[in-house]
Amino acid sequence: VSPAAHIVSTGTALPGEPVDNEAIARRFGMDAEWVETFIGTKQRHFAVDLNTGQVTHTLTDLGAQACALAMASAGVEARDVDFLVLGTSSADALTPATVNQIADRLCIDHVSSYQLQSGSTGAIQALDLACRLLDEEHLIGLVVGADVWVKRLVLDLDPTSVAPAQLADHALLGDGAGAAVVASELVPGSIAVRRVLNRFSGFSRAPGQVVRWFGAAGHDRRDPATEEDLTAAEKRVPLLVRQAMREVLGMTGWFPRSVTHLLPPQVSGRMTRRIIKQLGLTGATEISCVADIGNTGNALPFFQLDLLRDRIRADERAVAIAVEPSMWTKAAVTLEGV
Amino acid sequence: VSPAAHIVSTGTALPGEPVDNEAIARRFGMDAEWVETFIGTKQRHFAVDLNTGQVTHTLTDLGAQACALAMASAGVEARDVDFLVLGTSSADALTPATVNQIADRLCIDHVSSYQLQSGSTGAIQALDLACRLLDEEHLIGLVVGADVWVKRLVLDLDPTSVAPAQLADHALLGDGAGAAVVASELVPGSIAVRRVLNRFSGFSRAPGQVVRWFGAAGHDRRDPATEEDLTAAEKRVPLLVRQAMREVLGMTGWFPRSVTHLLPPQVSGRMTRRIIKQLGLTGATEISCVADIGNTGNALPFFQLDLLRDRIRADERAVAIAVEPSMWTKAAVTLEGV
Repeated sequence: VSPAAHIVSTGTALPGEPVDNEAIARRFGMDAEWVETFIGTKQRHFAVDLNTGQVTHTLTDLGAQACALAMASAGVEARDVDFLVLGTSSADALTPATVNQIADRLCIDHVSSYQLQSGSTGAIQALDLACRLLDEEHLIGLVVGADVWVKRLVLDLDPTSVAPAQLADHALLGDGAGAAVVASELVPGSIAVRRVLNRFSGFSRAPGQVVRWFGAAGHDRRDPATEEDLTAAEKRVPLLVRQAMREVLGMTGWFPRSVTHLLPPQVSGRMTRRIIKQLGLTGATEISCVADIGNTGNALPFFQLDLLRDRIRADERAVAIAVEPSMWTKAAVTLEGV
Repeated sequence: VSPAAHIVSTGTALPGEPVDNEAIARRFGMDAEWVETFIGTKQRHFAVDLNTGQVTHTLTDLGAQACALAMASAGVEARDVDFLVLGTSSADALTPATVNQIADRLCIDHVSSYQLQSGSTGAIQALDLACRLLDEEHLIGLVVGADVWVKRLVLDLDPTSVAPAQLADHALLGDGAGAAVVASELVPGSIAVRRVLNRFSGFSRAPGQVVRWFGAAGHDRRDPATEEDLTAAEKRVPLLVRQAMREVLGMTGWFPRSVTHLLPPQVSGRMTRRIIKQLGLTGATEISCVADIGNTGNALPFFQLDLLRDRIRADERAVAIAVEPSMWTKAAVTLEGV
């Protein structure tokens, strides 16, 4: 068992002004009511100016902003930080690693740093790695989850010619970053990390989602940038969530009825409601934010943690779950107020 | 201190036939002698057909092949594997993570899996994470380092119009994958991992290398795909290597003269020779392979480990070092024959 890990503080960052459903519907030729009913989001933020196509925020910008807020909230300075872990699917570049650009922006140097590539279980994977890093030379660390989907969005989209999945992406996704200061030391008011689950459960099934990147050569641009199997995802995601819940509770030795707060995966508002219903955790309060910020991928669990910090009291128990439909991975963490 | 970690076996994979300097010089309008003298490589393998531009091997192909060989060598079956860690800078896609596609190809399921994004310190970072994963539920794991640079290479290159750095890349880089089976259990003939160093040491300096990826939108294609500051790299890489050596030996409590095998970074044949000279480890035998396979990035340390396994005897000591000039990170590991 790893040494105790505590989430001491959190910080979040969103680019620019919120974009509501009216604006998104007008911009991409959708119906605002359809977005609200079928996607379940009300607003989101983008790291690109939707009118000009100009990138307004990089992943480094958002990650560094979230880290700075988490550090200020914990009273931690750059020289106190021993390690950084970033989980993302949309790094600014292949090299350098964005985690090091975030460190550089914050004047953090001579630290262990790691960047995990993951669709949306990267935030919990990063927390997992952070717990395993805490030792005699790693006392305080920053865990970051961030995604800027902007490179995936086709701004000159013709809504009559694209697949529904791609259209839905434009209404569901949002850009953002979240961060947490973690420490082995027990700080009053912090959240203790009990156990972390991170599991690839592919069952030899085809990917539910493929998002490609293109290089300098351009000889790979014949493949579509994005392929999604929404039907497979709708079927398998709720199952993976139920498995993750059962497994992480078993690992921790907790009964389902002892859980007071549930941080469910935020695939879409509609699917989140269905998932929660199936879990049947009647005693747990839901902590969701997909309606307000969209699906911000690896950033999202930190927005939920940010809300949890204000609500969880000593000895209360929370479970956070993330699922990645690209190649069927599930991640979960049990948390306790201290 | 983490539980003991042992490298039980290794496996490597190279795509297709070797491409010699005559062929590379002819293909890209270079001088074969210049390649041998200034780059120091003799041959390399590519995951693309240089004539047709057709991709012949994916990162998944090469990674799975290297893993299969390492597993066979250790007598490990798919159901024995508890976790996978991949270090790469050139994943097949943004999602799914290539590590999960490799697992799927090998019929490995229900495992913890992680993919680290790193320029060339990813192999040692992956070994670092593997050591930290070994616990009561993670007894045996696969550590993989792989890179397919093919998306970075511009095949219709005009040698008279490109920067020397980009031209050098075409002669220096190679594609490949390497893997190791690691276990906490002590298996005779295995290599014990003593300590792992992974450090970002940016000193607020600009990146020495930027490699960009492009998305569906295409509104980001105004930036160049690759930018390199070879002068900064030539200056700082040897310094980072000396620091890494001093730090990892200090962490392990080893005197420099007790090191019997040196696995230096394989930036280029020429730079490797200079680095080794500066280290002054007169008692250590060099284990290098950049001349035969080119700079294969995160795969390369596994090719060196593969050679080391045949040479190291009980109680002999080895140090492997990797340095990433993109944003100045250094990684090192101390190893001992058991």
